Amino acid sequence: SMNPDLASERQTASFSVEKLTAWLDGGAEYTRMRRAVVEAIEGDPVFSREDQYFQSQNERYEAAVKKAVHLHKKMHEMGWTENGPESKYIHRALAGDVAFFLHRIFMRSISMLGSDKQIAKWIPLATQYKIIGSYAQTELGHGTYLQGLETTAVFDIATQEFILNTPKISAMKWWPGDMGRSATHTVVFAQLYVHGKCYGIHPFIVQIRSLQDHSLCPGITAGDIGPKMSFEHSDNGFLMLQNVHIPRENMLNKFCEVQPDGTYVRWGSQKINYFTMTSVRISVISDEVISPVMKACTIAIRYSVVRRQSKLKPGEEEAKILDYQTQQEKLLPQLAAAYAFHFISNYLQGLFDRAYREIQRKNFNMLPELHALSSGFKAIISQCCTSAVEICLRACGGHGYSLLSGLPSLYTKILASCIYEGENTILLLQTSRFLIKCFMAASTGQPVPPSVTYLAAVKPGKCPAKNKLDFLRPDIYTEAYQHMAARLVSSTAAKLQDLIQSGVKKYNAWNQCTVQLAQAAKAHCHYLTVKNFVETVEKMETQAAIQKIMKHLCDLFALHGIFSNAGLFLHDGYISGVQMDMVTASYLDLLPVIRKDAVPLVDAFDFTDKSLNSALGSYDGQVYQRLYEWAQKSPTNKQMSPAYERYLKPLLHNKLSKL
Amino acid sequence: SMNPDLASERQTASFSVEKLTAWLDGGAEYTRMRRAVVEAIEGDPVFSREDQYFQSQNERYEAAVKKAVHLHKKMHEMGWTENGPESKYIHRALAGDVAFFLHRIFMRSISMLGSDKQIAKWIPLATQYKIIGSYAQTELGHGTYLQGLETTAVFDIATQEFILNTPKISAMKWWPGDMGRSATHTVVFAQLYVHGKCYGIHPFIVQIRSLQDHSLCPGITAGDIGPKMSFEHSDNGFLMLQNVHIPRENMLNKFCEVQPDGTYVRWGSQKINYFTMTSVRISVISDEVISPVMKACTIAIRYSVVRRQSKLKPGEEEAKILDYQTQQEKLLPQLAAAYAFHFISNYLQGLFDRAYREIQRKNFNMLPELHALSSGFKAIISQCCTSAVEICLRACGGHGYSLLSGLPSLYTKILASCIYEGENTILLLQTSRFLIKCFMAASTGQPVPPSVTYLAAVKPGKCPAKNKLDFLRPDIYTEAYQHMAARLVSSTAAKLQDLIQSGVKKYNAWNQCTVQLAQAAKAHCHYLTVKNFVETVEKMETQAAIQKIMKHLCDLFALHGIFSNAGLFLHDGYISGVQMDMVTASYLDLLPVIRKDAVPLVDAFDFTDKSLNSALGSYDGQVYQRLYEWAQKSPTNKQMSPAYERYLKPLLHNKLSKL
Repeated sequence: SMNPDLASERQTASFSVEKLTAWLDGGAEYTRMRRAVVEAIEGDPVFSREDQYFQSQNERYEAAVKKAVHLHKKMHEMGWTENGPESKYIHRALAGDVAFFLHRIFMRSISMLGSDKQIAKWIPLATQYKIIGSYAQTELGHGTYLQGLETTAVFDIATQEFILNTPKISAMKWWPGDMGRSATHTVVFAQLYVHGKCYGIHPFIVQIRSLQDHSLCPGITAGDIGPKMSFEHSDNGFLMLQNVHIPRENMLNKFCEVQPDGTYVRWGSQKINYFTMTSVRISVISDEVISPVMKACTIAIRYSVVRRQSKLKPGEEEAKILDYQTQQEKLLPQLAAAYAFHFISNYLQGLFDRAYREIQRKNFNMLPELHALSSGFKAIISQCCTSAVEICLRACGGHGYSLLSGLPSLYTKILASCIYEGENTILLLQTSRFLIKCFMAASTGQPVPPSVTYLAAVKPGKCPAKNKLDFLRPDIYTEAYQHMAARLVSSTAAKLQDLIQSGVKKYNAWNQCTVQLAQAAKAHCHYLTVKNFVETVEKMETQAAIQKIMKHLCDLFALHGIFSNAGLFLHDGYISGVQMDMVTASYLDLLPVIRKDAVPLVDAFDFTDKSLNSALGSYDGQVYQRLYEWAQKSPTNKQMSPAYERYLKPLLHNKLSKL
Repeated sequence: SMNPDLASERQTASFSVEKLTAWLDGGAEYTRMRRAVVEAIEGDPVFSREDQYFQSQNERYEAAVKKAVHLHKKMHEMGWTENGPESKYIHRALAGDVAFFLHRIFMRSISMLGSDKQIAKWIPLATQYKIIGSYAQTELGHGTYLQGLETTAVFDIATQEFILNTPKISAMKWWPGDMGRSATHTVVFAQLYVHGKCYGIHPFIVQIRSLQDHSLCPGITAGDIGPKMSFEHSDNGFLMLQNVHIPRENMLNKFCEVQPDGTYVRWGSQKINYFTMTSVRISVISDEVISPVMKACTIAIRYSVVRRQSKLKPGEEEAKILDYQTQQEKLLPQLAAAYAFHFISNYLQGLFDRAYREIQRKNFNMLPELHALSSGFKAIISQCCTSAVEICLRACGGHGYSLLSGLPSLYTKILASCIYEGENTILLLQTSRFLIKCFMAASTGQPVPPSVTYLAAVKPGKCPAKNKLDFLRPDIYTEAYQHMAARLVSSTAAKLQDLIQSGVKKYNAWNQCTVQLAQAAKAHCHYLTVKNFVETVEKMETQAAIQKIMKHLCDLFALHGIFSNAGLFLHDGYISGVQMDMVTASYLDLLPVIRKDAVPLVDAFDFTDKSLNSALGSYDGQVYQRLYEWAQKSPTNKQMSPAYERYLKPLLHNKLSKL
């Protein structure tokens, strides 16, 4: 049965949830396709995540392998393909709890970096799972800075082989998924040496386990790196190489080759690699970051209208906690952010698709902008969404802290997105390097990419808002963001130049500006997110009811950002203290308005109960019943603990001395 | 052997680490006592936490019970007592990974709420562990708001018994520690009914498990609430009562009694309860919050001088990551905060001790201030320290994400401190209720407690700083904090009054101000923390070298707070934009200064390797070696996974169809 407190929230929706869902999906036909995929996956007991919160790392790994193998069959049965339109819905339905993710990266790297001959040899083997691959780049002592990798591959002309070695412990490969226990092969990144000369980092295909009995190959030491904060399902592994010989043909050689006599030849552009990283970051944003935050909002907001605590009005019954301003102020900005990031993610995908078409015509002009944006957005979105999930968790109090709420595992997993595919600080500094360059170019009248043209027009000024309603005007707040971002970029550029002119070495000057550079990069991305949200809302004119609520969310997102970063807007007086009070008033006024539609707004994300896997967040709101039922299934309740016979009984029966 | 990169950091310390340690301990004699306790605990294999990261919830519980029973013996052997001076060092050495914490709360509640006769009966039974107690207050549907609890206790004159019931599922007791699997008894909070009249919440001693065989008593349903984000060692439990009869004498009756004829009598002051909560919050701050953040700083800072990544200066070797400004700006403010909170925790303890002496003389005057401060500080310190641990974790990149770093378990545990012993938002609103009251009183010239006298003197003004060095003057920044806190309190009080005067109902007006009220409470506590840090540094004049580095940390703490909350200081122009640039410059200038002493500053916290239990943070800096050794002990490496025979082999050998 439906919890009446949750049911009543749905009766007063100001818009059609189904229409909003279809719009979020990009059209009703995609909603239908997504639901069909979800139904097929969730209807299959092998893919059940019911016991997930009770399983050990070993059990999670086994289940993930089982699911991956079953998925291979299922896809065949259903006629789904790796790159088909269903692909992203499959991923969403499985919530990433499946093995062989790195097997796909293994294949992708061969396709990108291998010659046609290599592709013809290896891709069919991998596609048919005659081998299982992984991708071994990161080392124990080396992450982001690829030039620092220490693994070596020495070419031996006599045998026409490469000899791979891990010269010291910090050079051990560390973290690659699917490598700890599953993979038979891996792509190893190593420093190439020919005739004693180092040619830098190159990729090599190395077999690590027997195809017969899965035992480790000669010279290979490999295993699992042990427990992590999440990703228990994945066998992230270590790999040590001791005089491992591989044939010359195993160096991936689309771009370069070591010829039989040891001559090193390099050709073609490597810019495309750059493009791969970009594509991975853009898919991380939508699949690994935005989806979890939408789930967290769904769970926390539904729970907040079921949970009642304390009296708001004396004499009445206890109030729904979502009726408290502080609870609204925790959750509703996160909801607005989920929408904002969904829209900017669509924008990035569009930008990527355009760039891809250009690249196929050998035009690489869009790459720097695309790289800067994908880096910066990956950083700010993963950061904001991680903190959003934490806020949702804490907003559910003690019950949020139970694994059964689903929130802890969303948090521990999303947190990793701040680290992998480029650590966020390093990514922000890449974005700011681009911004400083563009700012310099713009200052001297040179052309710059569209997203940064605003930097050319930095001018002092004042926000024209006269009352709190003016701050609900998108032109007013978008300009405030633009002004703020441009100010941060220009003032940091000025500091950098001052330092260099005063005699500080360039690399030192850069280091001394990095805190502010990172801030400038964030401001730039924040501005673009607001601008894109505004434009998205403007384009919706055919759906008035949805447009109206989206406008409220857009306002909330923008004003929450000003309220929370007030110093950045007040700094040069663009917004005055009096105006900041108007911002605060408008911001707080929006909370009860959006609160009325909060449940329909999360319903529109259209997550099934199985997909949320949360005792707090299910559609019917039967929170307490479900917590109790699920707790009873816990292994901690399966039998009386041996601790009783061993320790408690002797203690209680006062036979301690016999212990 | 010692990692040379870490060793070199210790050679240049500007002060004596040993002296700083002694000073933090409150004197060298306490350092000696602490080390003796730590040695006794860590030398005993039963207390080892070596396997902690590999254990299941069941294994953690068993180990915790084993340790608790062993500790009982050990304390006897060592001559340590429950309330002796060693007590807090024992807790620190065990890192909380031990059972029977709620057993102590059970005893404390009987001592506080029970009559002399009840104390004489129950305390010896509990002390000798003839019974094991728990404390059942929170319900599935009810937390902070005690009046909302639904469990009932109906007095039956005929049998002279109370009959306890859980009328519906939301009334089930939920979360009490030691209750899921260990406790034989518990204190149950229930609504008392006599002759059909409800007298509100009262505490009752209820037996829940047989002393003979530990089976559940008639009418009792109890068990474990299942997996949580941390606290795997603790059997947090649920409890349902169905017509459970207990004798009249089992109602704790220091303050009230139901007489045999059903007459309800109440006497004495309950203010002392209020005082208990205060004492618990103050001990949470030091034991559960500050200690973990000191550990996290130790781990992250040691790792950051061992880890090298990318080149800072072209041509040189890769740089220690602590040499990057962005890494300094992540970690050093957390280090400064750890010191700041240690000092304010001492201040709160002193205030508590004074209040305790007054209470013994029946003077309750200090209670409101103490309550407001303990609530507000518990909230801001748990919040800041939780976020500090997360920052430390992320600053260690991928390795920080491994459980073996020790950081994930510090994080998942400290996060709970934002929720238990009063959810933080609710606590902040209690503090702000006190602040508004005092502000009103002060405005009309009435006397107010010492910590809030500054509210009487709110006046507009400008910060007198003329250059960046002025912002290293404690009077300058302390006044800025004071001004800012007073402004937030007074402006929120004004908003509240305006709303009420405009006809908004009082409870609604309060709700509409809560976001700003919480902000004002934070500002007040932030100001007191800065002020107390300044005063602590001033008092150290006999130890010049330590005073100097503490002054730097104090400056960093204060300026980081202004930098990160710039809007609050810029809002009314107290600090101008130009001055904020000076703040930023002074703040960033401090980073490389403190960086030089960063390792000695964490060494002074004096955590042993066993106590850190971190592959990244040990004293010798052998990070990579230890990660590799520990990973090999993981259960994921114990044998070939059954997943191979079951799923991988048939897949690789292309026998999938037979699956």
